[in-house]
Amino acid sequence: MSDLKSFASDNNSGAHPAIMEAVLRCNEGHLKSYGDDEISIRTDEVFKEFFGSQARIHYVTTGTAANVLGLRAVTHTYNSVICAEQAHINNDECGAPEAFGGIKLVPVPSKDGKLTPGAIAPYLGHVGFVHASQPRVISITQPTEVGKLYTLKEIEDIVEFAHDRDLLVHMDGARIANACAALGCSFFDMTTALDIDLLSFGGTKNGCLMGEAVVFLNPDIGEGFPYLRKQAMQLVSKMRFVSAQLERYLADDLWLENARHANAMARRLADKAGAVDGVEIKGSVDCNALFAHIPPEATEILLEKYYFYVWDEHDNTVRWMTSWATTEAMVDEFVDDLKKAVEAVR
Amino acid sequence: MSDLKSFASDNNSGAHPAIMEAVLRCNEGHLKSYGDDEISIRTDEVFKEFFGSQARIHYVTTGTAANVLGLRAVTHTYNSVICAEQAHINNDECGAPEAFGGIKLVPVPSKDGKLTPGAIAPYLGHVGFVHASQPRVISITQPTEVGKLYTLKEIEDIVEFAHDRDLLVHMDGARIANACAALGCSFFDMTTALDIDLLSFGGTKNGCLMGEAVVFLNPDIGEGFPYLRKQAMQLVSKMRFVSAQLERYLADDLWLENARHANAMARRLADKAGAVDGVEIKGSVDCNALFAHIPPEATEILLEKYYFYVWDEHDNTVRWMTSWATTEAMVDEFVDDLKKAVEAVR
Amino acid sequence: MSDLKSFASDNNSGAHPAIMEAVLRCNEGHLKSYGDDEISIRTDEVFKEFFGSQARIHYVTTGTAANVLGLRAVTHTYNSVICAEQAHINNDECGAPEAFGGIKLVPVPSKDGKLTPGAIAPYLGHVGFVHASQPRVISITQPTEVGKLYTLKEIEDIVEFAHDRDLLVHMDGARIANACAALGCSFFDMTTALDIDLLSFGGTKNGCLMGEAVVFLNPDIGEGFPYLRKQAMQLVSKMRFVSAQLERYLADDLWLENARHANAMARRLADKAGAVDGVEIKGSVDCNALFAHIPPEATEILLEKYYFYVWDEHDNTVRWMTSWATTEAMVDEFVDDLKKAVEAVR
Amino acid sequence: MSDLKSFASDNNSGAHPAIMEAVLRCNEGHLKSYGDDEISIRTDEVFKEFFGSQARIHYVTTGTAANVLGLRAVTHTYNSVICAEQAHINNDECGAPEAFGGIKLVPVPSKDGKLTPGAIAPYLGHVGFVHASQPRVISITQPTEVGKLYTLKEIEDIVEFAHDRDLLVHMDGARIANACAALGCSFFDMTTALDIDLLSFGGTKNGCLMGEAVVFLNPDIGEGFPYLRKQAMQLVSKMRFVSAQLERYLADDLWLENARHANAMARRLADKAGAVDGVEIKGSVDCNALFAHIPPEATEILLEKYYFYVWDEHDNTVRWMTSWATTEAMVDEFVDDLKKAVEAVR
Repeated sequence: MSDLKSFASDNNSGAHPAIMEAVLRCNEGHLKSYGDDEISIRTDEVFKEFFGSQARIHYVTTGTAANVLGLRAVTHTYNSVICAEQAHINNDECGAPEAFGGIKLVPVPSKDGKLTPGAIAPYLGHVGFVHASQPRVISITQPTEVGKLYTLKEIEDIVEFAHDRDLLVHMDGARIANACAALGCSFFDMTTALDIDLLSFGGTKNGCLMGEAVVFLNPDIGEGFPYLRKQAMQLVSKMRFVSAQLERYLADDLWLENARHANAMARRLADKAGAVDGVEIKGSVDCNALFAHIPPEATEILLEKYYFYVWDEHDNTVRWMTSWATTEAMVDEFVDDLKKAVEAVR
Repeated sequence: MSDLKSFASDNNSGAHPAIMEAVLRCNEGHLKSYGDDEISIRTDEVFKEFFGSQARIHYVTTGTAANVLGLRAVTHTYNSVICAEQAHINNDECGAPEAFGGIKLVPVPSKDGKLTPGAIAPYLGHVGFVHASQPRVISITQPTEVGKLYTLKEIEDIVEFAHDRDLLVHMDGARIANACAALGCSFFDMTTALDIDLLSFGGTKNGCLMGEAVVFLNPDIGEGFPYLRKQAMQLVSKMRFVSAQLERYLADDLWLENARHANAMARRLADKAGAVDGVEIKGSVDCNALFAHIPPEATEILLEKYYFYVWDEHDNTVRWMTSWATTEAMVDEFVDDLKKAVEAVR
Repeated sequence: MSDLKSFASDNNSGAHPAIMEAVLRCNEGHLKSYGDDEISIRTDEVFKEFFGSQARIHYVTTGTAANVLGLRAVTHTYNSVICAEQAHINNDECGAPEAFGGIKLVPVPSKDGKLTPGAIAPYLGHVGFVHASQPRVISITQPTEVGKLYTLKEIEDIVEFAHDRDLLVHMDGARIANACAALGCSFFDMTTALDIDLLSFGGTKNGCLMGEAVVFLNPDIGEGFPYLRKQAMQLVSKMRFVSAQLERYLADDLWLENARHANAMARRLADKAGAVDGVEIKGSVDCNALFAHIPPEATEILLEKYYFYVWDEHDNTVRWMTSWATTEAMVDEFVDDLKKAVEAVR
Repeated sequence: MSDLKSFASDNNSGAHPAIMEAVLRCNEGHLKSYGDDEISIRTDEVFKEFFGSQARIHYVTTGTAANVLGLRAVTHTYNSVICAEQAHINNDECGAPEAFGGIKLVPVPSKDGKLTPGAIAPYLGHVGFVHASQPRVISITQPTEVGKLYTLKEIEDIVEFAHDRDLLVHMDGARIANACAALGCSFFDMTTALDIDLLSFGGTKNGCLMGEAVVFLNPDIGEGFPYLRKQAMQLVSKMRFVSAQLERYLADDLWLENARHANAMARRLADKAGAVDGVEIKGSVDCNALFAHIPPEATEILLEKYYFYVWDEHDNTVRWMTSWATTEAMVDEFVDDLKKAVEAVR
């Protein structure tokens, strides 16, 4: 198989060998299906160690499912969900929240995909007015779609703002491990301790095959979710193959090491690429995504060998992502080729 | 891990070692995500060898997803889908066709879950009448939810009946391999050759981890499905892990061997258990499911050691299923215990 | 305008003059819109006099809306609603409960569209089983779609059966006035006194232009309904024009007189037509619908002058309906023509 | 009945006497229901005289229904509809397009609720990208939610931009009569002649009781709409009562006279109120809505006697609307009281 030289997405990497091994191992014998197996039950307990004993955990196979089903479970169709205009739920799920959740999204203009109470306030709409969707959830992404981090204090402020108005806070944590690694905090610090109500927990991008979860942290929400998950076509029959991934992912700090590594590779790439004449790294590099200005002709040369996205054609910005599987050698080779490409087009 | 002694469902078995190996193998390197990888593209071609070059194949992770999304793609919300009252879409998907497809199901009373033109005819409703859902699809399950087979001729008759009335025919083929193995025919014979319009192709129950597909055989239907699959939360990012299963499943007759084995184990169980005094096998054993009358007290004893379903409490019927992973020794041990249990309660 | 000689439906009649007058009268001046006007508020109070002070009343413009929105307000999408297979929600709303409510209907075979606890019991499905829609409501129609009546005791038995199982009871009362007139009971006797949870109250067929209501009798259900009605496109801006109809309809026993008259005309038609040689009235005539066997050739002759439905071509059954606007002269003329037609084809 | 002195909305007025008379007149005799009556059929023909013979017309009872059902009929759930952020479909329908249409709305920032090709272009999203909702319709409101008019040329430019990209154009014409009256053009000039694909035609605000219509002008769209309307709970049984309104509305230039009058009253109000010291009319007064800055204390005094909306508390803006039923005397009395109120709080 021809290997793709990819800095396009952490989705392009495979699964971590330790996780593959766990999947292999869980394959022995007959087990109950649909999550009643002992591995899934055990994995639930592992999650509770991380998120608190009140947490309820439901495995799904895609991040879109985690977002849409979590939000749907806590809303009526006449509710709205407030999110940054850059949010994955707003741009990258092909209208799933609207079509499969009946949810109205209220996109709020923002810098770097980060919401603030001040930015949200004008978008709450007419509370109690029968003609207006009634806000029910504020959804934040950590790290954001453009790789930026909320500080814990910034999240705390949003939660306080939300709870004061009887709104819930949802965190899209497709890359929550990268955020925790970068901020040096635990999953608990990032969510339960801040009174986040529900979380889309992502494992796939950081070393799983396909392993995501809806985690209800607020014990008063999420009733009936097992029926909803089944109905939403997300109740995998041989559930052990999902939960075994996540059990291993959460063991022995694998999630943390993978995330730290991905972040470090982004840092290395930023430092080395940023030192190349004609290349400018845009903004801070908080986790494992970075954005750079490079001459468009150099981009063309690089794309012959590498796979990554042109983020904005108008200002010649490209996005590069690293993952648990990105090596120092890959970064260094890429920077060499970048340097050559930029020089070639001068 | 304590092994479950299960005759409850083919979902209780794990994945076939050859498929696990393929999953392991596909893990090397970076690949494009969301199905643009070379394994998924290659697997599409394999499917076309089986179903004809006009087939379009879309992988999903659950049988419910295959059924609901296939049906949704070919219906307006004012259409209805006619199915046997025993159909999985009617009983075992927690209302997913209605809730996520907006589809009205018209359940038709049937023996053994098998439809016939004569049984369907009175349920077509008022065609062209604005107050009535307009029939659009006849959905059949092969083998049926109670393990019975349509002959090819019976399917042909339904398709002719349907196409004469401008209706499509959907086949829920969650266990299509077992049906082909039992009837000694190919996937092509069972579907494309009979002018079936769309198929839910199942791999999970017959040896995959989680691998199902929506297969459009009629080239005039299914437009826009990629958007629908994404929106329906079923576009797996690391798609190689699904397609690699199915590629291997379809190679070297693995699907056929697994299905033949499961069917043979059911046959063995029927023959041996049927010979036990006090046990009566109900009806024919067409594939890998069988139903038996046994004394309820004997069921209680058996359930202490084994896992299976009481199908009907009123007439003391139990359901036993075998799978690719059921061994002759397991069957024989079970029959021994069955004999003891029945004798104990005499 | 050429008058239609119709025995097809009570929908073919216009509105009662007294109601037209009320509509005219309410047209004076400017009033608040969307139900905040004094007429709507006053009409709410009138309804409470009939149904009890705990009732909450929401006006809509069609019976389909009353049924679908009432049911939707008390169900999750993973719930099911049990109804007779003849129910209007099952046959005559073009799949609206499924498409706009996400509701799974469970049609129960029945005689004359009447449910009984015994008939319902086998259709409750697997309570607590994640793969099965969870029953939440039993919906009955009074009188049924084929004009038959439940006795109060029969309703009471269904309500007791339902409440014992934590199910709600919905009454489709599109023709509730005809039922009350026939049984000699009040709206309260028929609903609140029997612990019916929610009612689709119909006024249109019995003399209104378009005036229906969702009435929640159980104070614990229906929260958020105003938002749902608005979202469901049923919040009429100049609401006075709906509520004024219903205010007048409920005054001075107009509803009762209209219903009594319609029932009496059906009785007259049954008696006179039943006396015609070659005509057989099928079953009892409980309200304002009746069914008759007549020679198909006679039907053809009659349809040249009159408008009514052939109910079942196979056994030559026709349906005749009367309304508040049917006169004795119309009935007598019709019976004369019927007699001639039957004689002509002997 | 106490008359409301309302400048809040044209919804607060009743129906025009001529229309009430038509409703009264249509009440004679029995007619077919559900739109098969001769009045509805005749009214269809009247609409075709205005919009062209290719037009197909479907009556509904609310503007929300016209918008949502028209848009739903021409979209898949994976499509998006682009609209101004001020659009009624975005703000004032309680999430109906999302919940009952499964539609993703893409709100575009705009001045005065008016879109332009340049404003739309950046919001088209990633066409052909499976993760993104695919744009299908541009929806414009004429006049806009803040009472401003597109010129015919501006509409033409949007249509050209749309059709070049295979997008449809929907016009929310809840107040289309006011727009035509102001621009001195016909319905045809405003829609069919400009290649508008579908129209929400409003009659209620300009003199009807409740009479709106979905009008498909493009003959290639809208298939199956009668089923959709029924399913969407909008197929009124005694349809004559809706169509008779619209037939009269369109006869003898009643629609035009009503609209001209409403516009003239707004002009009169603007001129007289604008001359009051301390009152400032904001922007142009294109139709029958106007916005004014007045001292908040004066607003409080006025609200004791009159009914209207404070539009924006932050900059002390109020909205005043006039209707066909607003008289010169009402305007003059209001301006007198306005003058007194403003003087009182100086």
